[in-house]
Amino acid sequence: MKKNNDEYIIIVGCGRLGSHLASLLSKTRRSVVVIDKEQHAFHRLSDDFSGFTIEADAIEIDTLLEAKINKADVLVATTNDDNTNIMVAQIAKTIYGVPKVVARLFEPSRKIVYEELDVETISPTVLSSIAFKNIIVGSEMED
Amino acid sequence: MKKNNDEYIIIVGCGRLGSHLASLLSKTRRSVVVIDKEQHAFHRLSDDFSGFTIEADAIEIDTLLEAKINKADVLVATTNDDNTNIMVAQIAKTIYGVPKVVARLFEPSRKIVYEELDVETISPTVLSSIAFKNIIVGSEMED
Repeated sequence: MKKNNDEYIIIVGCGRLGSHLASLLSKTRRSVVVIDKEQHAFHRLSDDFSGFTIEADAIEIDTLLEAKINKADVLVATTNDDNTNIMVAQIAKTIYGVPKVVARLFEPSRKIVYEELDVETISPTVLSSIAFKNIIVGSEMED
Repeated sequence: MKKNNDEYIIIVGCGRLGSHLASLLSKTRRSVVVIDKEQHAFHRLSDDFSGFTIEADAIEIDTLLEAKINKADVLVATTNDDNTNIMVAQIAKTIYGVPKVVARLFEPSRKIVYEELDVETISPTVLSSIAFKNIIVGSEMED
């Protein structure tokens, strides 16, 4: 069985979220590769990021092959476009059988598409709204 | 002492986060007013939002007076611009003495500015990165 630290993780999108996550995961000594269309996006990576970067469009199969998607244990789709995230998640899950695929979700109504693909989602909007609400009204019980 | 449900909350910014939070808080039967520069932003509010909306620039004092900032118990700055959020939070805290001010934080390096103002912050990027990391690597202990 694979040791956790041998896991290979592909992150699609190197915006604020993708770059922050890449740094967090890199610190756990996993192998991380980050894909973004824009070279300048990689400047967001912290100095101690120890993974690789690929400047290319992740919805092209050649890009995913360059990223060795067939060996990936995890793919995370973090771009700011739901359509891109859904497409990449779908390719990863159905064509390459990546065991764990997680995607950033903008429009909550899209969640059902991911559920059908067995892809977990995280909505920064929903997470943050709940955190704000907890600060503002506390954990009171409502009728 | 004021009952919780009599609290008056001003939300600055009606983007995805502001509108979602407005709906959550509105459900707790608090009085909520949402300010945004763009009329079309208010379309994001859910049908059951029972608060008020003001179409104006929140960094203008007249706008905040129209929103009755002097009576507000809570102000939340949720725009996608750190400078706007800092300015509004500062006005709310130092000029009008709003008891609780919370702001959305983009650049973690700005956090110190808020701490000096006694303003709580939430970073959607940090929150979401941690949530993604927990899904991906679980809650393992690192050396």
